[in-house]
Amino acid sequence: MRIIAIPQHECSELLKRVSVGRLACSLDNQPYVVPVRFSYEPDCIYIFSTVGKKIKWMRQNPKVCLQADEIGNSSNWLSVIVTGTYLELSVPQYHTAQLEHARKQLAQCSEWWRIPLARTGDRSLVSSIETVFFRIDITSMSGLRAMYEAEETAQTVGGL
Amino acid sequence: MRIIAIPQHECSELLKRVSVGRLACSLDNQPYVVPVRFSYEPDCIYIFSTVGKKIKWMRQNPKVCLQADEIGNSSNWLSVIVTGTYLELSVPQYHTAQLEHARKQLAQCSEWWRIPLARTGDRSLVSSIETVFFRIDITSMSGLRAMYEAEETAQTVGGL
Repeated sequence: MRIIAIPQHECSELLKRVSVGRLACSLDNQPYVVPVRFSYEPDCIYIFSTVGKKIKWMRQNPKVCLQADEIGNSSNWLSVIVTGTYLELSVPQYHTAQLEHARKQLAQCSEWWRIPLARTGDRSLVSSIETVFFRIDITSMSGLRAMYEAEETAQTVGGL
Repeated sequence: MRIIAIPQHECSELLKRVSVGRLACSLDNQPYVVPVRFSYEPDCIYIFSTVGKKIKWMRQNPKVCLQADEIGNSSNWLSVIVTGTYLELSVPQYHTAQLEHARKQLAQCSEWWRIPLARTGDRSLVSSIETVFFRIDITSMSGLRAMYEAEETAQTVGGL
């Protein structure tokens, strides 16, 4: 088995294929990481959430990191790491075009809206839950692929 | 579907069952999250790694967060979040008992040692790669479970 770096376009392809990743934020240098459902497009990532710990932290420190992967087994996996900046789309200037775009992108993930809202036990409270759409503006993206030796000889991707 | 908090013993059970998680560290409030293979035991988590970005960051800021999950589908998953402190086991006082214990724990994950070492293309360099065993001393642990309504009625775990 060998682990090699993958080019940017392969990172993008993974982010298009998968819709669940792990989002890390940080406050006072304490990191916090949670699973999220996302929708990727070049240069940014869209996420929908209820207002909880991660949103409160990202409002104070917009530096974030998102990791996504496809894991076959311990010798066959692909992992991408994105760093970026949190941008909340519910402030007035994003109400129209950007917010509608985020909604459309995320609507492609079936049931994306059920996960954050499911945290209330009382359905009558759903309308009063504060939710946000946010965007991560990507500043860097890198990826690694683990492969068996047999596959490796057939690949042209440069090694580390 | 509903999402509920799970008790500490269910968090522990998940961490015993799974061996891959996502570890987040932070430097200058920039979070960084990577997949890791780990071995859990009460109060701490053992990890083996080559010395790269995450180790350099955790040496400067030992606050970490680890997330692990079992995802069946969007309405059936379990996720645990651990916060803790990084402790490197290669400093002299840990050379004997603790380090040997970490080795034994991690040896139970087959091939745990291949993943970090696979990042060199030249096998002759393996012996010169700097590696570390480290431990995360757990300070807090919490977990959430998503379940279908039908399952929910059969559960006794308290909702949020």
